[in-house]
Amino acid sequence: MSDNDSGDWKDTTIDAAEAAAHPEVASEVARIRQLRQSIDNVDMAVVALLAERFKYTSQVGVLKARAGFAPADHQREAYQIERLRRLAVEAGLDPEIAEIYREFVVTEAKKRHQRIADAGGDPGVLDVFA
Amino acid sequence: MSDNDSGDWKDTTIDAAEAAAHPEVASEVARIRQLRQSIDNVDMAVVALLAERFKYTSQVGVLKARAGFAPADHQREAYQIERLRRLAVEAGLDPEIAEIYREFVVTEAKKRHQRIADAGGDPGVLDVFA
Repeated sequence: MSDNDSGDWKDTTIDAAEAAAHPEVASEVARIRQLRQSIDNVDMAVVALLAERFKYTSQVGVLKARAGFAPADHQREAYQIERLRRLAVEAGLDPEIAEIYREFVVTEAKKRHQRIADAGGDPGVLDVFA
Repeated sequence: MSDNDSGDWKDTTIDAAEAAAHPEVASEVARIRQLRQSIDNVDMAVVALLAERFKYTSQVGVLKARAGFAPADHQREAYQIERLRRLAVEAGLDPEIAEIYREFVVTEAKKRHQRIADAGGDPGVLDVFA
């Protein structure tokens, strides 16, 4: 739409008003809204899985603190990097995205492990999200 | 384990050898390995979902480029921030984690939208992971 007269397209709100104002892009707007519902469904599932993941890693943090283990385990990380790369390729996902995901969850889990260790391994002193 | 003699615990590899060397923590090692299998299963599911998510956002990128829409849509982002926070609380996940996840996927999706727009909205010029 090079001949649009709406000014700043650097920030476009894709909604019914946009479609009404630009009937020539109504089909794109409709399809984008459909895709966004699927994207929102994926995010809902991922949030549920992340909630479970951080419950598991919180338990790992308590066990590590109790046993005196360090938050970091480089052999485990090497295994995860290799495995997630392989799974990403198999799923048709850019392996770079899988690696960003891994860094994000491992970094956050380690931060929480350190907090648990600093608190003497007592999960009772942690907030509900630790 | 304050009386361990293994030196540097800042990097602990939790495996069968560790358990054999320190029988007093064998039960923690066994439980951590169990939890790690669950964590790996969560990651497998998340990678599959992220693969689908980026296929959807790639389609959105093509439609936006075709219609002349900008990669950014701040109203959409405000909706996602509010929704993911609510879903996180409901799932028992620190909302901060959900927000880091959202920033990560939106940032990567926008980068790819910009690439699609720069290529004139032609997904044919993109690599298989775009």
